[in-house]
Amino acid sequence: MSPDIQDLIRLLSKLPGLGPRSGRRAALHLIKHKDQALYPLLKAITTAGENLGLCTTCGNVDTQDPCALCQDERRDRTIICVVEDVMDLWALERSATYHGSYHILGGTLSALDGIGPEQLRIAKLVERSHDGEVQEIILALNATVDGQTTAHYVTERLATANVKISALAHGVPVGGELDYLDDGTLAMAMNDRRQVAG
Amino acid sequence: MSPDIQDLIRLLSKLPGLGPRSGRRAALHLIKHKDQALYPLLKAITTAGENLGLCTTCGNVDTQDPCALCQDERRDRTIICVVEDVMDLWALERSATYHGSYHILGGTLSALDGIGPEQLRIAKLVERSHDGEVQEIILALNATVDGQTTAHYVTERLATANVKISALAHGVPVGGELDYLDDGTLAMAMNDRRQVAG
Repeated sequence: MSPDIQDLIRLLSKLPGLGPRSGRRAALHLIKHKDQALYPLLKAITTAGENLGLCTTCGNVDTQDPCALCQDERRDRTIICVVEDVMDLWALERSATYHGSYHILGGTLSALDGIGPEQLRIAKLVERSHDGEVQEIILALNATVDGQTTAHYVTERLATANVKISALAHGVPVGGELDYLDDGTLAMAMNDRRQVAG
Repeated sequence: MSPDIQDLIRLLSKLPGLGPRSGRRAALHLIKHKDQALYPLLKAITTAGENLGLCTTCGNVDTQDPCALCQDERRDRTIICVVEDVMDLWALERSATYHGSYHILGGTLSALDGIGPEQLRIAKLVERSHDGEVQEIILALNATVDGQTTAHYVTERLATANVKISALAHGVPVGGELDYLDDGTLAMAMNDRRQVAG
């Protein structure tokens, strides 16, 4: 196998979601379909390399800094929704229920992976929470052990800020069947039950 | 989401093995790790686009045409191993048991996908089989319905060539447990049993 192919396979294999075998398939696909796949991808990656970066305010990925979301006058600046990753921001934007601003931590605290508060964008969040405009901070972190540990830590760090801190509701997912739910979720759903009549 | 990110995600999602979600993850990974991931991949794809192509003799992917395998004087030119895809050639090369030349069909006959003999590199194989040098053609096609249909068709097309035609042995995979094998494989393994003593 020529070194050029080996290089391409090695780099494609390192993308999240790909392994050695799918890396080989992807490399062959690109080489066999240069006009439909390789050259367009080359152009997109070149553009991404030149234009895309992280917003220094919220941590979102965009072509401008501050990002389009941070600059958008229609977004409610009094609320900040804290998420782990840009993927979570995209997921919330797809749900189209939130119209405030965001703050991306860039991960969760993890003793195992050696990720402490300094590796996350927590200091910047504390700074933003003191700007006088922010009234509520929504912790939209994953309902995992690491996510919830991080949520507790962030809550403590925000203690001195004069803001309301909230978290996403736990409960039965829409379309979910009780029989398949884990006990923890069911217990949370029962405790946080809401009155619907009477 | 900026159009630049959307473009990158769309193109990454179209790679075999990736979907919309893993495409988003891969795009973010590239943007967040420009020096370690994005720029090296950009370089590898650029090189692949410029240098890599298909060998007009065997259909292998290489920087030269004829490819390094076809030019290699140490390979046995009297045998051609016919495979569906370059992935299969790589798999055989990893096994290091074959030292002849190759011929890549580029797929299998498939009425469902509208792939007829003209879409495959069968005519070139017939041409090669008549060059006077080739003595054996090994059909190393997948043991699927499409693979075996193609093997039959290729065998018919090679009827006029004065060459021996063989196929890979069927049987129990090394490390395989009989209890987990399908009936077809077991039956083949029984019929093709080999004498080990006496």
